[in-house]
Amino acid sequence: MRSSPQGPAKAALVISRLIETIRQVLPESPQELAAIGLAVPGPLDATTGVIIKAANLPFENVPIIRIVQEALGGPVFAGNDADLAGLAEYHLGAGRGTRNMIYMTISTGIGGGLILNGDLYTGHGQAGEIGHTVVEPDGPLCGCGRRGHLEALASGRAIARIARERLAADEPSLLREWVGDDLSQIDAKLVGQAAQQGDALALSIIQQAGRYIGIAIASLMMLLNPDKFVLGGGVTRLGELLFGPLHEAVREYALHPYYWESTPIVPAELGQDVGLYGAAALARARLR
Amino acid sequence: MRSSPQGPAKAALVISRLIETIRQVLPESPQELAAIGLAVPGPLDATTGVIIKAANLPFENVPIIRIVQEALGGPVFAGNDADLAGLAEYHLGAGRGTRNMIYMTISTGIGGGLILNGDLYTGHGQAGEIGHTVVEPDGPLCGCGRRGHLEALASGRAIARIARERLAADEPSLLREWVGDDLSQIDAKLVGQAAQQGDALALSIIQQAGRYIGIAIASLMMLLNPDKFVLGGGVTRLGELLFGPLHEAVREYALHPYYWESTPIVPAELGQDVGLYGAAALARARLR
Repeated sequence: MRSSPQGPAKAALVISRLIETIRQVLPESPQELAAIGLAVPGPLDATTGVIIKAANLPFENVPIIRIVQEALGGPVFAGNDADLAGLAEYHLGAGRGTRNMIYMTISTGIGGGLILNGDLYTGHGQAGEIGHTVVEPDGPLCGCGRRGHLEALASGRAIARIARERLAADEPSLLREWVGDDLSQIDAKLVGQAAQQGDALALSIIQQAGRYIGIAIASLMMLLNPDKFVLGGGVTRLGELLFGPLHEAVREYALHPYYWESTPIVPAELGQDVGLYGAAALARARLR
Repeated sequence: MRSSPQGPAKAALVISRLIETIRQVLPESPQELAAIGLAVPGPLDATTGVIIKAANLPFENVPIIRIVQEALGGPVFAGNDADLAGLAEYHLGAGRGTRNMIYMTISTGIGGGLILNGDLYTGHGQAGEIGHTVVEPDGPLCGCGRRGHLEALASGRAIARIARERLAADEPSLLREWVGDDLSQIDAKLVGQAAQQGDALALSIIQQAGRYIGIAIASLMMLLNPDKFVLGGGVTRLGELLFGPLHEAVREYALHPYYWESTPIVPAELGQDVGLYGAAALARARLR
């Protein structure tokens, strides 16, 4: 049995699969290729096209634009996947008609995209990393190696990890009946299903995740005072189970009712391919 | 002995003093008054000119622009004091030459001003309230009535409050020798003086304040990825005593060295009247 590849070898494998996947949808004639738009998971240097570090993939300092351009040709544009999802929701989804909009995706990890004064705001190139803002300084370690980030407390991966930890500490739960001793079967979806059936352990985990997202949103209201928050990603499909404690935390931590009364927090509208719509929007905008 | 006025009566008193103070510097001929610029402590609705709530003054829903205009005439423009200080540092001080700059003032309270894409960013009118972002969800109550805000942990007022609490709990300190049983004499300046003389209690309080400011800055680096942070306000005059633990916390909590290596954190340059320079800059910009 071969061990699975690690680090640079694994990165090369992911990239070669990426290139093969793009090749399958390329037009037959190279002249028909207008541009390639890439939605990249993790902070990206917009000037150099280098992925700084991806928290959930073995990428560090990977010059993704150059690599794809050399393999496939055509102008290549890249953006952070959550930034681009935010751009897509702003143009085509729940953010239509706003001027300042904060997009958050609560999925395996947590990402964000900021639309400020009607434009995607990327700062020096890597803004919007809402998942890596600190919400609990003594909290658990994040996938990125730092402590107390929102992603370590409220992402899909965090929800699964906390459930496994609490089951291992012998807390009773439906989840135990469903997976027996094989805790590796636990993921956020399963925890969500248990919560929907009223399981106390699962409910308290989802409630805590919603609370931390609400705390982060309260801070963002004070800091950026946007017109609207748009929340996407699989975990938001839990609906009121997540949004209830989220709204409660916003009211508990925001400076004044003015803020939450004037700032709707709504679900995203564009579904799973939102990053691709955003990558297309980016490529189209840059070609103009 | 009369008790001091509270709530609306106190607000009216503060406003009448404000109007008298402005009157003293008005030109003799009304025609020579080009405009009045106001730097307001607390969130302000930029459209209506109403102070929503000032955490450290008895102001709530005060239509400050209309009041000053009716009393003194002339076009009146107002902005949040920290926003305007940020604008002044950007045009005239430590932020010259940046495009994205975050200004923080660490004083009695903590405020912020965001310059994004070369402009003062105010969101729907009340952005930049960095002092009211949550850095410790179970932390102490803030002046605004909410829990765990940065201002409740690292402002001048917080530094004084924590020193009084720890002296009341009988921790030994130079401060006890200096003030005896009259803990009301303790303010942030005195705690700073004790820290400069190597007092362990005072040092640990300043260190903790620096650490929380660093945690907030780490989150802001991830979120807004600015070119520079500019820090003003009396507490920053503690220099390395504050900046040492601040930089340490940034390194501990930021996603990747890329962020702190590319983002200088520097002291402000414009001194105490920075809000006035900013109010003047705002009025001049609006008159154009």
